[in-house]
Amino acid sequence: MSYYSPSIEKLIESFEKLPSIGHKTAVRLAFHMIDLNEEETNEFINSIINAKGNLKYCNTCYNISDTDPCPICNSTKRDNSIICVVEDVRDIMAMERTHEFKGVYHVLHGTISPMNGIGPEDIKIKELLNRIGSDNIKEIIIATNPRVEGEATAIYLSKIIKPLGVKVTRIAHGIPVGGDLEYTDEVTLSKALEGRREL
Amino acid sequence: MSYYSPSIEKLIESFEKLPSIGHKTAVRLAFHMIDLNEEETNEFINSIINAKGNLKYCNTCYNISDTDPCPICNSTKRDNSIICVVEDVRDIMAMERTHEFKGVYHVLHGTISPMNGIGPEDIKIKELLNRIGSDNIKEIIIATNPRVEGEATAIYLSKIIKPLGVKVTRIAHGIPVGGDLEYTDEVTLSKALEGRREL
Repeated sequence: MSYYSPSIEKLIESFEKLPSIGHKTAVRLAFHMIDLNEEETNEFINSIINAKGNLKYCNTCYNISDTDPCPICNSTKRDNSIICVVEDVRDIMAMERTHEFKGVYHVLHGTISPMNGIGPEDIKIKELLNRIGSDNIKEIIIATNPRVEGEATAIYLSKIIKPLGVKVTRIAHGIPVGGDLEYTDEVTLSKALEGRREL
Repeated sequence: MSYYSPSIEKLIESFEKLPSIGHKTAVRLAFHMIDLNEEETNEFINSIINAKGNLKYCNTCYNISDTDPCPICNSTKRDNSIICVVEDVRDIMAMERTHEFKGVYHVLHGTISPMNGIGPEDIKIKELLNRIGSDNIKEIIIATNPRVEGEATAIYLSKIIKPLGVKVTRIAHGIPVGGDLEYTDEVTLSKALEGRREL
């Protein structure tokens, strides 16, 4: 038996479907929504409608953006000869926050994962090869996540891109800044050792 | 400088305004929204629009409901002579989950709180007194929260309702079931002692 009115129940259910929202938070969010005035409610709903309506994929790098090409691909300040390959749109934001990378991006929208039936043709690899073929690319930096699928994708990419005469690099694995040797897992630690540099 | 497109940025901001949602969760929710298909998006938006459009206050108990009177006030199985007074609509749901209370409710929509400039006239006390005046009420159970404002409101209510010849009771304070004497604060423990019953 439900203790809430059908409309409240439905609203709670809607919020419960969102990731990382449990039942109690969903109830809180639903009642917050009910308490909002009309203007605030419209603002919330319109932000969703606008996002769904305006956002498109950049046909160059497959970033999600209000414009195609996206601001990064369209910028004259970026070095178009260096492409950083990432798994997901959010990874671009993570890279941008470093303020260190001045090249452009390519979003794969996934990783090769035979266990989940995802092969090279299911992610944006063909599109990356097209860019390498048409633009004057000097370096491909592979920044997929350091997990099994990310590593496999990195190895696959390096094997097919290297023969095209383009330098392929991989972002470094190691102990995170502020990390602790004692609590670092052995795989990361051996990667850190392997990637050691002369001082 | 923002790293996201304006539409994404706006969507993240919308989610960040919700209670108990931090920046990282807002980003996750925003991208989840973007990934939803049209049907799922409409379902989410409609649940908000319907809730805002359908919900109204019950003019008897001030519960929020799709109907006026609300299902509880409208039920023939409930005892209309016992009113449980709560602060908030959510407290009704908490009481209903016990399956113990068969009376009806009255939602104050707040507590008396002079510090915040909320006096007796700012919450639904007048409406409660009207009910006591018109219906044949035997008992008023005051179930405001056991905090300073809730206690003050309970004392205020008992002072004005008792002279009307209606029994006024307060829900018991004590150690929660499964609680631990060692970790119970002294105020709760003295309330538990005070409210002891013969076995």
